[in-house]
Amino acid sequence: MLDNVPIIRIYKDGKAKSKSINDRIVAEHALTIKLGKKELVTLLCSPEKLEYLAIGFLCSEGLIKGKEDLKEIVLDENQGVIEIAITDNTSITKDGASKRLIGSSGSRGISPPSLDYHKAESTLTITPVEIFSLIEEFVHRSEVFAATGGVHSAALCDTQHILVFSEDIGRHNAIDKVFGECLFKALPTDDHIVITSGRVSSEIVNKVVKRNIPILISKSAPTNRGIELAADLGITLIGFVRGGRMNLYTNTKRVLYHKP
Amino acid sequence: MLDNVPIIRIYKDGKAKSKSINDRIVAEHALTIKLGKKELVTLLCSPEKLEYLAIGFLCSEGLIKGKEDLKEIVLDENQGVIEIAITDNTSITKDGASKRLIGSSGSRGISPPSLDYHKAESTLTITPVEIFSLIEEFVHRSEVFAATGGVHSAALCDTQHILVFSEDIGRHNAIDKVFGECLFKALPTDDHIVITSGRVSSEIVNKVVKRNIPILISKSAPTNRGIELAADLGITLIGFVRGGRMNLYTNTKRVLYHKP
Repeated sequence: MLDNVPIIRIYKDGKAKSKSINDRIVAEHALTIKLGKKELVTLLCSPEKLEYLAIGFLCSEGLIKGKEDLKEIVLDENQGVIEIAITDNTSITKDGASKRLIGSSGSRGISPPSLDYHKAESTLTITPVEIFSLIEEFVHRSEVFAATGGVHSAALCDTQHILVFSEDIGRHNAIDKVFGECLFKALPTDDHIVITSGRVSSEIVNKVVKRNIPILISKSAPTNRGIELAADLGITLIGFVRGGRMNLYTNTKRVLYHKP
Repeated sequence: MLDNVPIIRIYKDGKAKSKSINDRIVAEHALTIKLGKKELVTLLCSPEKLEYLAIGFLCSEGLIKGKEDLKEIVLDENQGVIEIAITDNTSITKDGASKRLIGSSGSRGISPPSLDYHKAESTLTITPVEIFSLIEEFVHRSEVFAATGGVHSAALCDTQHILVFSEDIGRHNAIDKVFGECLFKALPTDDHIVITSGRVSSEIVNKVVKRNIPILISKSAPTNRGIELAADLGITLIGFVRGGRMNLYTNTKRVLYHKP
């Protein structure tokens, strides 16, 4: 969903195309998520897969745990509002919405980082050849949208293929859309891999460990706190997979490479 | 401020440097801003210019208007807490902190987008040659930090030079640091230019119009809502300044180019 707008393009040699040029523009959509009638948050996002985004967001915030917690989802796309009713016996973290951590680039989590969940546990292993191959598939799918610039992608994979793929102007949103789709379709995330185009901060690590993801792969750089948290939480963190190389940061035992 | 961590680097031909490689890592810092004793927000940010970040954030949120609103600033760097006391007669928007807009990549604003401020007004003009020259200076200063990947930059400029420069893992933080420094040093922002490395969403436009910035330049893409808002608010929006070209999106009269 891209708009076209008129622009004037000016070149370094002083030439200008003063007739309007239609350029492809990234769409920005505002989605207000209501839990019952209570307004929870307004996300700025790309206008696709809004139901998955809302579900994934609630899940990342610890407000729902599975599809069984969902009673009704009503999306009003024109108003930019989604109302989600959840079952009474859902195990909502009571403090979940009480404190908002507002983070750096891409951050929009409500809940503060917490360690009240288990370490990622899995005997999953992967080879460098499989990682390069997954990234190739990931980049290929991302390129469809790359023309506009500034869009993030995220995917759930097994060691062979991408199973769920989403993109969004926000790197957090892209991951929430993936997890929302998994939750909605009851796809397992245990023993699976997440790929993100964006930087791995502590918040991203917090998000994936909640789904028990053992291996997290990024095309970009991790932060120091992202690395520390991945180390503590048993997540294999692989970053900077580009230009024919990759960096293994933490819990490297899951990557089967030839030690020299 | 960069940490060094051991990594394993694997190459596409299967070779691995299993001895630890020290790689440069982006530092991620958590800063909790307290207004008086009340906890307002926790930002994930780069650990420099934290006072400017806090002041700029309060300013962007409409909680302070100038240096005269500040009574005391106490930064505890180890605890990651900054306490700011403001004068009683400050014109705080009472609803300022009541609703949090949590946005996409880079977004961390509390306040919802509002149009209760004036249009950017200025007779400032700029030539394409000046824009390319400013961007060259901007890129040069950004490159110092580019080695680690994933850091955003922002600057306040006149038509000739960069006056204030900041970088941060968050594109919002980078701009807040610039405005915080301006406010603290009583540097004027009227009739000045802001350059950002990041995408121009509606939130970024909202941020700069509060400082009456008439010209906003980005190396990246604007979103459709960023363009709409810049058009409405009288801001000259210039994007995708790279590879010897630029796009003029809105209020193009401030750019003096040769019409063919």
